[in-house]
Amino acid sequence: MSPRLTVVGNYISPYVRKVLACMELKGLAYDIDPITPFVGDDRFSDLSPLRRIPVLIDGELVLNDSSVICQYLEDRFPTPSLYPADIAQRAKARWLEEYCDTHLANVLVWKLFYQKAILRRVFHEETDEAVVERALSVEIPAALDYLENQLPAEGFAFGGLSIADISIASYFRTASFVRYAIDATRWPRTAQLVERTQALPAFQRLAHWEETALRLPVTEQRAALQAAGAPLTSWTMGTPTPRKGFARME
Amino acid sequence: MSPRLTVVGNYISPYVRKVLACMELKGLAYDIDPITPFVGDDRFSDLSPLRRIPVLIDGELVLNDSSVICQYLEDRFPTPSLYPADIAQRAKARWLEEYCDTHLANVLVWKLFYQKAILRRVFHEETDEAVVERALSVEIPAALDYLENQLPAEGFAFGGLSIADISIASYFRTASFVRYAIDATRWPRTAQLVERTQALPAFQRLAHWEETALRLPVTEQRAALQAAGAPLTSWTMGTPTPRKGFARME
Repeated sequence: MSPRLTVVGNYISPYVRKVLACMELKGLAYDIDPITPFVGDDRFSDLSPLRRIPVLIDGELVLNDSSVICQYLEDRFPTPSLYPADIAQRAKARWLEEYCDTHLANVLVWKLFYQKAILRRVFHEETDEAVVERALSVEIPAALDYLENQLPAEGFAFGGLSIADISIASYFRTASFVRYAIDATRWPRTAQLVERTQALPAFQRLAHWEETALRLPVTEQRAALQAAGAPLTSWTMGTPTPRKGFARME
Repeated sequence: MSPRLTVVGNYISPYVRKVLACMELKGLAYDIDPITPFVGDDRFSDLSPLRRIPVLIDGELVLNDSSVICQYLEDRFPTPSLYPADIAQRAKARWLEEYCDTHLANVLVWKLFYQKAILRRVFHEETDEAVVERALSVEIPAALDYLENQLPAEGFAFGGLSIADISIASYFRTASFVRYAIDATRWPRTAQLVERTQALPAFQRLAHWEETALRLPVTEQRAALQAAGAPLTSWTMGTPTPRKGFARME
């Protein structure tokens, strides 16, 4: 029998959410150590050389990078498939995933969520309002214009649910933690895709634990998640004190 | 019959080299518009929303991101395969590719090659010697320590040649343009892998055109490459004047 899969990474992270959503959708059992990179100890550095979450542990195999992990889950557990069968559509889905992981992450997570929530709550620093304002008025609208142009009028991006929908919905979910919502009159295609994807049972199960984590300092989340029935590991790589500068190495 | 493949991107870029090496290794015919993002015009922005190179054009399909493109080439032209057959090794190869595309690119390309060559030659600005010194003394050695620990004592990373070797060799090739060479006494595994990969006929064919491009300002490269027999497109998305700030959007 295969060992049980383990994920290191916090429910609040969109990168972690991509992986957890794929596992939920594929019906895989897993345990999670819900740390942020800010509190990872030296063992975390050993498993994740760039100190990023998520990390997937599958027996002897340790994998980094959400895109690499999602593709691995697809290769190893192909049913249900979360990548389009058509080769060209599969490539386009992977591109939309990459667009989310780099650009949408930059404008929604680093310039909005990190500025408005993490800097204040974790590091007790001030939000840079100019960064937030530029993200809200220029950069996020431009990214939404691009996405809107790539998506169909209804349904998922490529017919059946795929990694493209999972990625887009994951980033906008983290943005919603600081009350960002897509204007459905201006970007109806993206808004309906995000709503449809986030309404899936897999996303709804995760939402419960995301809300638990969101309410608490990172060092108090573990106990609350345990009480809320999250599938926690028996060990943790988290330390008691968040350290700035460990969130992103470059 | 399928349309001929087209690549937009310069021979000097390690991201472009990954794609061209895959195409050469798979024996695919292609044309190239050897522009840098600095000189791309509005049509380039349309094809590449983050203004990155390479772009692959395959008939109606336009693809961005070197990792997405290389995986597409593998899916569409599976022989010879450039991804390990074993699922776990395939995932590890993709992770090493990702490590190169983000971290090795950051320390070798942006902190070394861009500082020493592009800033001076394209934009007539001064090198930030502190950035270069830190890259050479701390960051590149740390990245090499990590790679050395991942690689076998001899041969390619996963038995047969794979995207992992192609990626590692591509980034160190661009670093060699500013005379960076791996210390083979300190990192023998990485040094032999890079030497072995760069000695392949596919890399050697590209090396000829890389050297042609390297000697000249970006706006003079096209004519010289044509004279050197590079498979150029009949059109170009390049403008006469390089524009700073278009190299990297985030």
